[in-house]
Amino acid sequence: MSVASRRLHPLGAHRVLEPRGAMPQNAWRLDNTPIAHDNEILCNVDVLNIDSASFKQIAGVCDGDASRIAEHVLSNVRERGKQHNPVTGSGGMFIGCVETIGKDLRDRLDLRAGERIASLVSLTLTPLYIESVERVCVTTGRVWIRGKAVLFASGLWARLPDDIDENVALAVLDVAGAPAQVKRLCHAGQTVVIIGADGKSGMLACASAKALVGDGGRVIGIAPSDQTATARLLIEHGFVDHFIAADARDALAVSEALAGVAPQLADVTINCVNVPETELASILCSKDGGTVYFFSMSTSFTAAALGAEGVGKDITMIVGNGYARGHAQIALQTLRDHPSIHAYFNATYAH
Amino acid sequence: MSVASRRLHPLGAHRVLEPRGAMPQNAWRLDNTPIAHDNEILCNVDVLNIDSASFKQIAGVCDGDASRIAEHVLSNVRERGKQHNPVTGSGGMFIGCVETIGKDLRDRLDLRAGERIASLVSLTLTPLYIESVERVCVTTGRVWIRGKAVLFASGLWARLPDDIDENVALAVLDVAGAPAQVKRLCHAGQTVVIIGADGKSGMLACASAKALVGDGGRVIGIAPSDQTATARLLIEHGFVDHFIAADARDALAVSEALAGVAPQLADVTINCVNVPETELASILCSKDGGTVYFFSMSTSFTAAALGAEGVGKDITMIVGNGYARGHAQIALQTLRDHPSIHAYFNATYAH
Repeated sequence: MSVASRRLHPLGAHRVLEPRGAMPQNAWRLDNTPIAHDNEILCNVDVLNIDSASFKQIAGVCDGDASRIAEHVLSNVRERGKQHNPVTGSGGMFIGCVETIGKDLRDRLDLRAGERIASLVSLTLTPLYIESVERVCVTTGRVWIRGKAVLFASGLWARLPDDIDENVALAVLDVAGAPAQVKRLCHAGQTVVIIGADGKSGMLACASAKALVGDGGRVIGIAPSDQTATARLLIEHGFVDHFIAADARDALAVSEALAGVAPQLADVTINCVNVPETELASILCSKDGGTVYFFSMSTSFTAAALGAEGVGKDITMIVGNGYARGHAQIALQTLRDHPSIHAYFNATYAH
Repeated sequence: MSVASRRLHPLGAHRVLEPRGAMPQNAWRLDNTPIAHDNEILCNVDVLNIDSASFKQIAGVCDGDASRIAEHVLSNVRERGKQHNPVTGSGGMFIGCVETIGKDLRDRLDLRAGERIASLVSLTLTPLYIESVERVCVTTGRVWIRGKAVLFASGLWARLPDDIDENVALAVLDVAGAPAQVKRLCHAGQTVVIIGADGKSGMLACASAKALVGDGGRVIGIAPSDQTATARLLIEHGFVDHFIAADARDALAVSEALAGVAPQLADVTINCVNVPETELASILCSKDGGTVYFFSMSTSFTAAALGAEGVGKDITMIVGNGYARGHAQIALQTLRDHPSIHAYFNATYAH
């Protein structure tokens, strides 16, 4: 059945090839024909930002070799019609220029052909057609390509800001959910623990959380080392009140170290780690009645659910939702509000 | 390293054999030596209640054959020292009599040797030693054994009530988190959708939710058929205001059917299904700003996280925590409060 003969669906169901009845995100394979149907936006893509858990896995099987990573991504996209890592289940996002806006959307959207945007929906549900991979940055997980992608009527996107470097904006928008959710969860006077504080989302979460808990509250960052550039930045600029150098897979060590500086434990624990097996540390760091926000795509649902029950912790555990109203603007504003983090992002991603 | 030489830990870390540094729940293998250390409770176990997602998987690979299921459970427990299904990651619970209470716990617990209890922590973290499997009930997922299990100092348990059949109590305690969490989430006047309404946790969730939302609210049950005994019970006794017969893996069909009876969609959606791929239906059934509670052990974290982002839904998604303060008493009380459900549980589980 060709796309043309199927009913166009706002969520893109018409692009699903297999299995039948699936939606684009849980589909095995999408139709990635690079044209815009009436309710679609077709973009010329030049950069993919592979999600951190996924890129770590891909880089691992490719021994960190850029050309093998390129081949791996190309072959995955050819097979599935989207950059959907079958091992981690995660994707990433893209930057591109609008080429065509389908006629049903033209008058509804504040967007014109030629404008430069970043996708805010996952690559796991975005039809993607790659002509060639031009370059892979093994440090940042960015992949420069020549290709085209399709956004659905329901798809989220953000116009790239004039005052922030494009690659920096992409890096921030990739984790845009984090600062927006921190803003909802954290309040004055609370103790907030951020596991994986030294990553992109962790840094933004620390800065947002510290601004919210204020002088009467405490932000405690956890990462394997307190000697990295990011850890030192967080400590020196006061984005964390304490920094614990520990491996979050060692739940006991982490929770005992936390109890040393904050015996009452955390009101809110935010997990931003991109490795598996850190659920229990997140649970043990939280006080009874507290909240754990799992922003990490490496989270195992059963490990979290059974872990909390197993240790008898009455806590609320939330699945990180990449979307929250206004999240793109909140994330970009976090960067503007904290020049030291903006400078770090410029140094790391603006090339 | 023998258990005796390791420091006894309230969460049972001293029972972990591999990998090093793991806790009992995420360990591959536990030391299931059937003795009580000073901070442990040793129980004579006669019934295992395998969790629904796990039993469905085991029964599937064993073609529903009771003796092959028995062999499968026995072999898994011999390998891991616990009934931890490596495919689903889930376990279940047990009923047994207290044999020995370690000396550090004797004066702290309101419990004596000889008392009959149900474990309220998952079998995935409970050292279990099976001498023999006596009988398997393929309908209910119960497995009668001769064996012994160990509860840690942090382990939750419930004394079995006098006024409720033991097997019925076990069936209810297995899903005790559900009614307790419904009580926290649902309020008068809300629209509540329960996916997998016809299962154990689904039925209890419907009854609890309807009592909470009141006449001004609506409870909508979803299950593959509205002709099963449980569906008819829910409809006839008014535990649901509407019943939608649909396969929750078909996200579009389910959400379109819901929009037909409740165009404003759900304030709270509770997922009690024991099959994978129902995350998106749960998301699409929820209104912007609503809450999805994933009580199902078949939930995929990434499918939930990316699914909500993919369709641009600003909702709160909660990982079902099997534990909530007072959950055992709340669950048993739900049964007492609703004689028709109690009668159904008696007919189904009391043998």
